[in-house]
Amino acid sequence: MGKKIGIIGSGSWATALAKILTDNEHHVAWWVRNEDTIRHLQLRHHNKHYLTSVYFNTQLLTVSNVVADVIEASEYIILAVPSAFLRDVLAPLSNDALQGKKVVSAIKGLIPGDNMLINDFLAETFDLPLEQYFTITGPCHAEEVAAEKLSYLTFSGVNLADAQSLADLFTNSYLQTIVNRDVLGVQFAAVLKNIYAMGGGIAHGLEYGDNFLSVYVGNCFREMQVFLETYERQQPEESATQHNYNASAYLGDLLVTCYSLHSRNRTFGNMIGKGYSVKAAQLELNMIAEGYYASRCIFEINKQTGAHMPIAQAVYAILWEGLHPEEAFLALEKEFI
Amino acid sequence: MGKKIGIIGSGSWATALAKILTDNEHHVAWWVRNEDTIRHLQLRHHNKHYLTSVYFNTQLLTVSNVVADVIEASEYIILAVPSAFLRDVLAPLSNDALQGKKVVSAIKGLIPGDNMLINDFLAETFDLPLEQYFTITGPCHAEEVAAEKLSYLTFSGVNLADAQSLADLFTNSYLQTIVNRDVLGVQFAAVLKNIYAMGGGIAHGLEYGDNFLSVYVGNCFREMQVFLETYERQQPEESATQHNYNASAYLGDLLVTCYSLHSRNRTFGNMIGKGYSVKAAQLELNMIAEGYYASRCIFEINKQTGAHMPIAQAVYAILWEGLHPEEAFLALEKEFI
Repeated sequence: MGKKIGIIGSGSWATALAKILTDNEHHVAWWVRNEDTIRHLQLRHHNKHYLTSVYFNTQLLTVSNVVADVIEASEYIILAVPSAFLRDVLAPLSNDALQGKKVVSAIKGLIPGDNMLINDFLAETFDLPLEQYFTITGPCHAEEVAAEKLSYLTFSGVNLADAQSLADLFTNSYLQTIVNRDVLGVQFAAVLKNIYAMGGGIAHGLEYGDNFLSVYVGNCFREMQVFLETYERQQPEESATQHNYNASAYLGDLLVTCYSLHSRNRTFGNMIGKGYSVKAAQLELNMIAEGYYASRCIFEINKQTGAHMPIAQAVYAILWEGLHPEEAFLALEKEFI
Repeated sequence: MGKKIGIIGSGSWATALAKILTDNEHHVAWWVRNEDTIRHLQLRHHNKHYLTSVYFNTQLLTVSNVVADVIEASEYIILAVPSAFLRDVLAPLSNDALQGKKVVSAIKGLIPGDNMLINDFLAETFDLPLEQYFTITGPCHAEEVAAEKLSYLTFSGVNLADAQSLADLFTNSYLQTIVNRDVLGVQFAAVLKNIYAMGGGIAHGLEYGDNFLSVYVGNCFREMQVFLETYERQQPEESATQHNYNASAYLGDLLVTCYSLHSRNRTFGNMIGKGYSVKAAQLELNMIAEGYYASRCIFEINKQTGAHMPIAQAVYAILWEGLHPEEAFLALEKEFI
């Protein structure tokens, strides 16, 4: 017996999640902004913009562009819009709209401007307690879910049994699930990896080779740990959770984002390394690369945290302050071990 | 003023090391087995079989197929033959031939059959003390050294100052060097990574995607640590050294070997995953993939060590016991986090 699950967003990751859930015969209430996309979904049974090869059993879909209706109808609500749009998308909701709901972030980012984790934004705006908040993290490019290539998703929540119930909705022949309590750490990992993938793309664009890239990625993995350890030393005792850095939500997700040709952040970075401006790369790729905003969020947060993050710092300086990529990487070369 | 350095072997890695050293104006005494290759080197100034684009200043080369002469002439001796051939290559030497010499292993393997680390073999056969033993580890595909793409090499020795003196011979504009004391750990890392790259190639041949590969590699990294921790708990106290797993000699080398298209172990594994027999893959590629022998060495060593190594075990069973790759990976899928 399927549970009603809401999905907010219609990009490639939202579409992949809708595929997994409907393949498992769950009913999905799907918020899609664009009316034309909704009509196409209903008539032609697929998303005309993303993962177009995925056809849906539309008997399991209720598609709507009224976000309050979708949330009203759902026990679980999966947020899958770019972090930069989240505030606007949820703006029509009343403050108590998420009462009693389980909210699942599939967003790999912080709220730009506020530099807040998604759970902090939801707590502030909707009084959502951390017990009702969960995350879905990769490594999982949507394109491979569409192709039903075996992938692993990690579900995090402060209560492990609740995270497991959520994970069980997704498990199937092409999708394995992992659960943990590390709901804060994995969010930072998901944000940082996009910055590092952007930097990996820049290095590639600068014509560094595979030898260098492997050293670069290893040092990114190290820097991610330095940031999290430093950040947590400054938090109240109770929020400290053990991080399993070698698990797929950390190292695995970093690797797929830095190495896969499906990675939009890597592609974006590659163009920057080849000499495109940020504006030109954005126009050419016609999309938001999360790592672009993420680099500024982490830069802002790290003003307070003060962790030694030469790589994230370099990516920020290249993207936001016009530092020449070649110069930035010449300085980085000396930092690596 | 250059030091006289001997190189034993003429494969691609030996050729890359000879390039680095002669680029730095050191004199190299080079043991090359094949007379025709020697003549070609002397007349045409390059190795006709490997990295053929690399031309040498032959005034800095003394090439010979008499191993005793090369060792006699050298202060440092770099071993760069496949591990399976080392015993035969050094057989003509007297027991005291390495007295007072510094011996540097650039070999990524254990001695097959004996399952010995190179330093243990040299201690047993030539009474070489560990203080005179060093290792060179990657991540460093020879092809990128030939192209002068920036690469990082790690030099390990129990005495850090000696390791630094050795490293200084190699440092130049396209080569950065790192030193540590972890001379035993890095040897195992270099062996294990070839096994894991073989497995990564097999997964690719079985048509697993990028999402899965990133989870696979992350779990390999974890397994490498499990092996080393278990192995060292069984060693005498004094041999324990701290391992920096996030440094390039561990994670970086694993990454380049698993992800680079230059990786011979990955290519070999790919053919196995696609259904080639070990024999057919060997004939087709016309070379020894170190991971093939390594998988048996580690299997034998781990009979005693008893570490939980499902991945290395699966690669061994596929290559040596005829286990079907698909079956092996179906079992592995459940082990991953």
